[in-house]
Amino acid sequence: MKISADMAPELEVGRWFNTPTPITLAGLRGRVVALHTFQMLCPGCIAHGLPQATRLHTMFTEKDVAVIGLHTVFEHHAVMTDEALGVFIHEYRLGFPIGVDLAGSGDPVPRTMQKYALRGTPSVVLIDRAGRLRLSQFGPIEDLQLGAVIGQLLAERGLASDGRQSD
Amino acid sequence: MKISADMAPELEVGRWFNTPTPITLAGLRGRVVALHTFQMLCPGCIAHGLPQATRLHTMFTEKDVAVIGLHTVFEHHAVMTDEALGVFIHEYRLGFPIGVDLAGSGDPVPRTMQKYALRGTPSVVLIDRAGRLRLSQFGPIEDLQLGAVIGQLLAERGLASDGRQSD
Amino acid sequence: MKISADMAPELEVGRWFNTPTPITLAGLRGRVVALHTFQMLCPGCIAHGLPQATRLHTMFTEKDVAVIGLHTVFEHHAVMTDEALGVFIHEYRLGFPIGVDLAGSGDPVPRTMQKYALRGTPSVVLIDRAGRLRLSQFGPIEDLQLGAVIGQLLAERGLASDGRQSD
Amino acid sequence: MKISADMAPELEVGRWFNTPTPITLAGLRGRVVALHTFQMLCPGCIAHGLPQATRLHTMFTEKDVAVIGLHTVFEHHAVMTDEALGVFIHEYRLGFPIGVDLAGSGDPVPRTMQKYALRGTPSVVLIDRAGRLRLSQFGPIEDLQLGAVIGQLLAERGLASDGRQSD
Repeated sequence: MKISADMAPELEVGRWFNTPTPITLAGLRGRVVALHTFQMLCPGCIAHGLPQATRLHTMFTEKDVAVIGLHTVFEHHAVMTDEALGVFIHEYRLGFPIGVDLAGSGDPVPRTMQKYALRGTPSVVLIDRAGRLRLSQFGPIEDLQLGAVIGQLLAERGLASDGRQSD
Repeated sequence: MKISADMAPELEVGRWFNTPTPITLAGLRGRVVALHTFQMLCPGCIAHGLPQATRLHTMFTEKDVAVIGLHTVFEHHAVMTDEALGVFIHEYRLGFPIGVDLAGSGDPVPRTMQKYALRGTPSVVLIDRAGRLRLSQFGPIEDLQLGAVIGQLLAERGLASDGRQSD
Repeated sequence: MKISADMAPELEVGRWFNTPTPITLAGLRGRVVALHTFQMLCPGCIAHGLPQATRLHTMFTEKDVAVIGLHTVFEHHAVMTDEALGVFIHEYRLGFPIGVDLAGSGDPVPRTMQKYALRGTPSVVLIDRAGRLRLSQFGPIEDLQLGAVIGQLLAERGLASDGRQSD
Repeated sequence: MKISADMAPELEVGRWFNTPTPITLAGLRGRVVALHTFQMLCPGCIAHGLPQATRLHTMFTEKDVAVIGLHTVFEHHAVMTDEALGVFIHEYRLGFPIGVDLAGSGDPVPRTMQKYALRGTPSVVLIDRAGRLRLSQFGPIEDLQLGAVIGQLLAERGLASDGRQSD
């Protein structure tokens, strides 16, 4: 787990599911963002990452915590297509917005995954109300620990984008 | 759960994974056969059916119980291709033989699934040493119950193909 | 796991719960007996042994499989009393007959546990229709494996008490 | 779940386990306190409450979160004695401090349980750095939710005992 305080890079998404309009991190300022990156044929994502994202999405109101899935395909690109992802989202009844990370040029690793230097799937990224990257975890993270970090970020109510606390 | 005593129809398989040569039920006479049918994007198959098939494959010797997977795609054919299945088998480290049920002509339901009148995935089919269909269950079946039926079939050691017990 | 074919020693029980009359193995001839030994303050018994006994009791009819609990207290005798066991059985809603293994004289290990040479709790003992000891397992045993052995014993329908198969 | 901001009543404990000296809430000011109340023969406590308390104890440092068990016996007093509790704590390898709630006079419900108006076991109580009662939950609470509240309480770093935030 890496905890930092740099601004989180903007998402680079080709296609969105479960949202009428594209989502940007800039548009989510003031809320805590939980970004779950996955691949649809990654067993750890199905066993741990996506069920945890669903629990987050159920437990917190959207105005407090925005839960976003990101399909970061870095292997087997031929079969983990957007069409296949659409079926996967339907079959697993995933209800939160899910974006497809834009393919890299000449690199199997897609762009957002590169910018966040994520090592694989599943990964969880937490972004605070001010848009700063606060947690980036590759592999399973326990609910109790994830909840505690989210709770701390939620408590930072008036954080300005320059890091000054305004209340 | 349906228990019957008719001969099990032969498998109709287009492509095999995890076996050097095609498998026929006829070639498995004398062994109990546990057939697990699934679709790679079926949540219940990943949560229940395939882990149970793996436990069977681990627990019994192959000369007693032949565990066979059958990919019975009856929906979303465009994305549950043989190529995608190959990736799925690799990622989930499935070690038992898996066949692809042959596409039906003018029918989304593939041929073996039709012949066995299976209602969906996951399904478990048990075939006795004499090649007779003894159990066909759609949906989850508990390990204790599945084990008990397999144990009973294993105990029928000298069953001839006409149903007479020879010992 | 030890598989043998000697006659199972008779139970030595001081007090019974969940049965109007005392139970003897002799009185259960013709049925498969699943004996689950436990201590009420043994974590493995609560996590594995007793839930498995409850599943057995739910899944099989009593005329096929007699599920019996045996409280084999070999440590902390002062607090795992009959009165405490009664509360435990009530709180855990255990529905199958449970006997209290008779205290040994000058030995912390109770009598039935001694006669079966059980190494601890939880243990599972399977006795066939003819009253012979067929399986004795200390520690967890998987449902699939336990079910398979029970299925095999159930298939021995006409076993006479001298071991000759009568059908 | 009830969230309030009154001062948490002091514990009334007869005997402590796993601590060299008695613990008081007054002595824990500045730390978040997670109080897990249980009865040793309560199935929900063993399945949910105590494993969660152990996870809390493992995950957070003691200077941040003080995890305390409280044995609130309100039924079957004759068998859930201090001696029996000692065996239970040993067998379940519980590592956090555990107190025995003092018996009420002429009331089966013990004193601390009465003062907190707890409805049964298991219950979780959270007390903030300033000694105020912030959460009281009867029955299971999800790790994600419990973690989030703890995280929020941890973020209140400079809270004075009168509720003014000092930083």
